[in-house]
Amino acid sequence: MNSTAINSTAKPQRTLHVALDERSYPIHIESGLIGRANALTPYLAGRQVMVVTNETIAPLYLEKLCASLPGHLEVRSVVLPDGEQYKTIEQVSRIWDALLEAGFNRRCTLIALGGGVIGDMVGYAAASYQRGVAFIQVPTTLLSQVDSSVGGKTGVNHPLGKNMIGAFWQPKAVLVDIESLKTLPRRELSAGLAEVIKYGLIRDDVFLAWLEANMTALLNVEPEVVAEAIARSCQIKADIVAEDETEQGVRALLNLGHTFGHAIEAHQGYGNWLHGEAVGAGMALAATLSKRLGWINEAALARSLAIIKSAELPLAAPANMTSDDFLARMRLDKKNIGTKLRLVLLNGLGDACISDTTPVDVLRKLLDEYPRC
Amino acid sequence: MNSTAINSTAKPQRTLHVALDERSYPIHIESGLIGRANALTPYLAGRQVMVVTNETIAPLYLEKLCASLPGHLEVRSVVLPDGEQYKTIEQVSRIWDALLEAGFNRRCTLIALGGGVIGDMVGYAAASYQRGVAFIQVPTTLLSQVDSSVGGKTGVNHPLGKNMIGAFWQPKAVLVDIESLKTLPRRELSAGLAEVIKYGLIRDDVFLAWLEANMTALLNVEPEVVAEAIARSCQIKADIVAEDETEQGVRALLNLGHTFGHAIEAHQGYGNWLHGEAVGAGMALAATLSKRLGWINEAALARSLAIIKSAELPLAAPANMTSDDFLARMRLDKKNIGTKLRLVLLNGLGDACISDTTPVDVLRKLLDEYPRC
Repeated sequence: MNSTAINSTAKPQRTLHVALDERSYPIHIESGLIGRANALTPYLAGRQVMVVTNETIAPLYLEKLCASLPGHLEVRSVVLPDGEQYKTIEQVSRIWDALLEAGFNRRCTLIALGGGVIGDMVGYAAASYQRGVAFIQVPTTLLSQVDSSVGGKTGVNHPLGKNMIGAFWQPKAVLVDIESLKTLPRRELSAGLAEVIKYGLIRDDVFLAWLEANMTALLNVEPEVVAEAIARSCQIKADIVAEDETEQGVRALLNLGHTFGHAIEAHQGYGNWLHGEAVGAGMALAATLSKRLGWINEAALARSLAIIKSAELPLAAPANMTSDDFLARMRLDKKNIGTKLRLVLLNGLGDACISDTTPVDVLRKLLDEYPRC
Repeated sequence: MNSTAINSTAKPQRTLHVALDERSYPIHIESGLIGRANALTPYLAGRQVMVVTNETIAPLYLEKLCASLPGHLEVRSVVLPDGEQYKTIEQVSRIWDALLEAGFNRRCTLIALGGGVIGDMVGYAAASYQRGVAFIQVPTTLLSQVDSSVGGKTGVNHPLGKNMIGAFWQPKAVLVDIESLKTLPRRELSAGLAEVIKYGLIRDDVFLAWLEANMTALLNVEPEVVAEAIARSCQIKADIVAEDETEQGVRALLNLGHTFGHAIEAHQGYGNWLHGEAVGAGMALAATLSKRLGWINEAALARSLAIIKSAELPLAAPANMTSDDFLARMRLDKKNIGTKLRLVLLNGLGDACISDTTPVDVLRKLLDEYPRC
């Protein structure tokens, strides 16, 4: 299988569309978008522009992005600390402070330049500033390019749970510059691949097979292969979001591995395990549980674990987490309606489902016996 | 003119409807709703209920309201400090803390028991908790009954501007118990009448005349008259909100007096002038400006000022505010799109319009010459 087997016309430039009526928007995937003149301008609501980024990304891309904006605009910037542990309401308040100090009105536009943490915080800041202003996603990590920048989930963490405070707020556009992956640390590349693998596992066994064949090229950031993986991931996500914007049903499938993963992240303290790493181990747990429940066979479980491992992601759970730690954290997960524990499990490769019938004793036994790092 | 001239079948029990497609909801206006069994239950999303109120209202109504809920529900409460100066993101965070400590999920329901400050904060807490949960408004002040509990504007203040952080988030129902007005201080009753008068001024000269005839009965909290004033006010607001939910156009008319009023409130420090008092003086300023621009005649101005005064509201601006203070605060008002100052002015009694053509020198001259307290 060659590296562009899915789409023989694949090029490192393409545009997808998230269909949400008057909230619809494009996703542009291309090399060199950051810094290209007028790449952002069609999506600005007015003259006031606030670019929000973090201390890691600012020296790499902030000046370049600002320089690409027309000179007649009023452009300001906010640089926040980098890391999931800073995804808090206090940091969002710093964005609001900057907007108010600049006297920005309802026609301003926020630009999220960075990874998922920046995107989630800027989206929520935009959702709540003057009851809602425009924002644009310019994701610079693989994880945010394939997942968090698309779909309008915004928010911050709370000491008692991840993403507990937030809003559904759609961007005006998502601009994915695949060149930004060249500066991405290898560990974060792997973390992003967790979400890419997730799309294959939940919805698309052909894509899963393509990923198995192309994992080395992905880890080497080969542009054609990376662009294809991002486009395919975004398309699956866009389709699901268009079907179920506010997660009343099918959108919950996107949380494969996330109930376990969120428990890991929260217990380790945000930022110690990367989100994608926790999702990797979480998907391994979900696949193992699916096998124990008799929903998938040994071969499917083996392929699920192998592809997670091939992306250099952890399969084992953290050594310091007991079964009780997991269960306590998982009950607070947003997917749990009422008192039953809802989990996303696998019916097969490329076929996930939402289940609230897992007996607690089966879950506890899995957690008791599951390998730790 | 007798006190029920508008609607001869007026009774102190009625139900209105805010038409917003799948976000539609009823407004029930009736004596004794707080504490009536099953008044709230049709609007609960699930078994988890968080009642949020303040230190003034809690001893009066909290136990009564909680006792009216079916015993199988999980009911918790949060009591916040009373006053506009506590309408902050920090107080909203206390609601989020309580929800998370109780382990409440997406199917929980928040109940806002109190005035506009509680309603705005609880609405925003609900809009942002787990990206949006249900809430019910149980307004206990006249101002919140006729204005803030209807229409889905939620949010908190920022040191640099009123209501700068928030969301549009509609309640599942509004329950107006007019008996709660019996415990309302006279000063707050007057403050509520400011918004009632506003509806007459912007949209309904018949209602305005009815208010002129019934002001004494309103100040005496005569149930039939109060119920009629609330119903008429809510109907006008519901009609405008149904037409323009997110204030792209006509909804801005509801801000008559508010651009001046917000400047007064912010400058005095939130809580020193009541919102309705600031709106009273703000409407007097807007009417006076309308006269100076030649849009209304002397008689219309005189009637506008007289009805504000008859509700025991201030006409003069605060002694400590210069014209520059006003102008600086007004530029940050959310209604100002781009650089022009947008104001709601009167074309006539019962006929307001949005204008961005007021010359700054005319506005400055008005502010220079306008009476101070």
